[in-house]
Amino acid sequence: MDLTAPTMASATKTRAVYVLTTGGTMEKVYSERTGSVANLDSKIGRYLDLLRLPDCQLNVVPVMNKDSLEMTEQDRILILGMVRAILRENASIVITHGTDTMVETGLYLQRALPQLETPIVLTGAMTPLGFEKSDGLQNLTESLLAVQLLRPGIYVVMHNRVYPVHRVRKDHALGRFIWTDAESQ
Amino acid sequence: MDLTAPTMASATKTRAVYVLTTGGTMEKVYSERTGSVANLDSKIGRYLDLLRLPDCQLNVVPVMNKDSLEMTEQDRILILGMVRAILRENASIVITHGTDTMVETGLYLQRALPQLETPIVLTGAMTPLGFEKSDGLQNLTESLLAVQLLRPGIYVVMHNRVYPVHRVRKDHALGRFIWTDAESQ
Amino acid sequence: MDLTAPTMASATKTRAVYVLTTGGTMEKVYSERTGSVANLDSKIGRYLDLLRLPDCQLNVVPVMNKDSLEMTEQDRILILGMVRAILRENASIVITHGTDTMVETGLYLQRALPQLETPIVLTGAMTPLGFEKSDGLQNLTESLLAVQLLRPGIYVVMHNRVYPVHRVRKDHALGRFIWTDAESQ
Amino acid sequence: MDLTAPTMASATKTRAVYVLTTGGTMEKVYSERTGSVANLDSKIGRYLDLLRLPDCQLNVVPVMNKDSLEMTEQDRILILGMVRAILRENASIVITHGTDTMVETGLYLQRALPQLETPIVLTGAMTPLGFEKSDGLQNLTESLLAVQLLRPGIYVVMHNRVYPVHRVRKDHALGRFIWTDAESQ
Repeated sequence: MDLTAPTMASATKTRAVYVLTTGGTMEKVYSERTGSVANLDSKIGRYLDLLRLPDCQLNVVPVMNKDSLEMTEQDRILILGMVRAILRENASIVITHGTDTMVETGLYLQRALPQLETPIVLTGAMTPLGFEKSDGLQNLTESLLAVQLLRPGIYVVMHNRVYPVHRVRKDHALGRFIWTDAESQ
Repeated sequence: MDLTAPTMASATKTRAVYVLTTGGTMEKVYSERTGSVANLDSKIGRYLDLLRLPDCQLNVVPVMNKDSLEMTEQDRILILGMVRAILRENASIVITHGTDTMVETGLYLQRALPQLETPIVLTGAMTPLGFEKSDGLQNLTESLLAVQLLRPGIYVVMHNRVYPVHRVRKDHALGRFIWTDAESQ
Repeated sequence: MDLTAPTMASATKTRAVYVLTTGGTMEKVYSERTGSVANLDSKIGRYLDLLRLPDCQLNVVPVMNKDSLEMTEQDRILILGMVRAILRENASIVITHGTDTMVETGLYLQRALPQLETPIVLTGAMTPLGFEKSDGLQNLTESLLAVQLLRPGIYVVMHNRVYPVHRVRKDHALGRFIWTDAESQ
Repeated sequence: MDLTAPTMASATKTRAVYVLTTGGTMEKVYSERTGSVANLDSKIGRYLDLLRLPDCQLNVVPVMNKDSLEMTEQDRILILGMVRAILRENASIVITHGTDTMVETGLYLQRALPQLETPIVLTGAMTPLGFEKSDGLQNLTESLLAVQLLRPGIYVVMHNRVYPVHRVRKDHALGRFIWTDAESQ
């Protein structure tokens, strides 16, 4: 019997999973001093603690903490470097990222990693973790599951949907991701 | 490009998903009158409302509300009947179920449905939805994603893990599901 | 036996309580469209529903929804008018208000209502209702209790403290209210 | 200008507050092993951490952790001993207690402490802290405020109401406390 993706072959063993955090809405906090939200401290660890992840060796790596509109080429090079290092360990990778340039970073990784042998999942949130009506924990939960099931490639996982990164774009009016029409990479 | 399972072929369309609820710990409520927890009313709908499920035509069907230790052969026949009816619609199916006999029900469905063409996911909880430290919403979130990605078959999805139903058993001492050794179907 | 304030004399009857909402941090919501927090809709009702208030005829009156730094003389006249109308009903009054000018509004009401025969409580929040670490529901809960126990006068109730309005000021560095030294009214 | 109770005279100083915990519904936890709720560990500290209590020297003293129906004369003697010790420190006292015999314990303390010079507040919950729709944190919040405002005496504070202990009884049908008719002590 086989499951959906080669990664499931070793499903019964303890898995190493890396969560690279880069900021974005998911990690914004409300500052009482300024009365506004901003990317101040990495807070994903506190929320991952709410999940039950047995047999999972979870590594949270705060790479940066930025609004993704302010992300630079240098930042993407840094993310790529981290990803390359982790790929050598044969671990799963989830990257949390601001939604505005999530697809841009995903396509950048896809171009740089043509021979990818594991799936990489990008995720984020429309409302910060811990705020009423937040979608952050849902998206983290989904991403940590999807990264075990998907074939090699780069994906956006949000709101109960899995999008190959070259098939998705953020619809600002709808406030969510939607499929693009393009079938070709 | 293809994704992990045939069901993803139509991933860009609106999907019908059925959540059949049968009770179990996930749906237990605290009764102020008795000072104990019991299966009184279906409450999954309230928690599913916390999730963002765009393009998803969600149907919650309360089939019964029982502690799974009290589930009878008649109950399993009823569940099977509901499943058969939904399979005709080509919709995804998630079944919420008490953990004590979840595998038993899953194996029963597997025997009765040898030609299954879609995945069916069974899930539940160790602590009721809405109680501190509950795993209920995590398991629902994971199941609603997994049912889109998995190949045809019957699965238990809990705690960030996907188990084919014939490969899993509940470990009462650990308070969670673990792999069985049997490799054969 | 007597209790602390004359208002307790009728404690066994159903009480009318008015919550006048004027906005401030307590009612700010996170806007996914702008990625910032703002006073858009009155949301206190949703949170008051989480409290058990038997024998309490609760009336939530959204007067305005403003950051208190933008509150004008006209706004204070409007609040005073509402207060005068309610005082005729002999009901309790809680006013939710931004913290930056809460004391200013309180002193304004104190000057305008020298013969006050009931207590009026002003409250607010440092972090919006429903955001992680919010103090909003705590302050609402405290205010709804305090307004039953206090003697006539105008008070700020926040963070487990009761301050007569002429004895308190917001300390912006500490991010909370503190006692002033002045003992005189 | 004076406030409602003599205790407010020193309101500007840091106050010592003792929370004596004795168990009851407020502290029940859901046990995954047994599938039922029980008094296993004191958990009030975790919830008090959610409140902002500046200038408050809070001492949580777990005295016992019992369903109040199982509370014995020996248990009440123990509580009384703790109360006497704290009264020497001139600190405020809140006692968390199961609702079924809360009034009985309160009347016992009232008989034993005829010369009481501070208020003592008894509180509890109908649904455990941290369970959906719990009234636990509301009642704790109210009690910590009331104990600063009330005149010497023994009170039950629950659900936005303050009852002198000889004026209240639990109504099991309504699932809450109600006034008794007796006016005399």
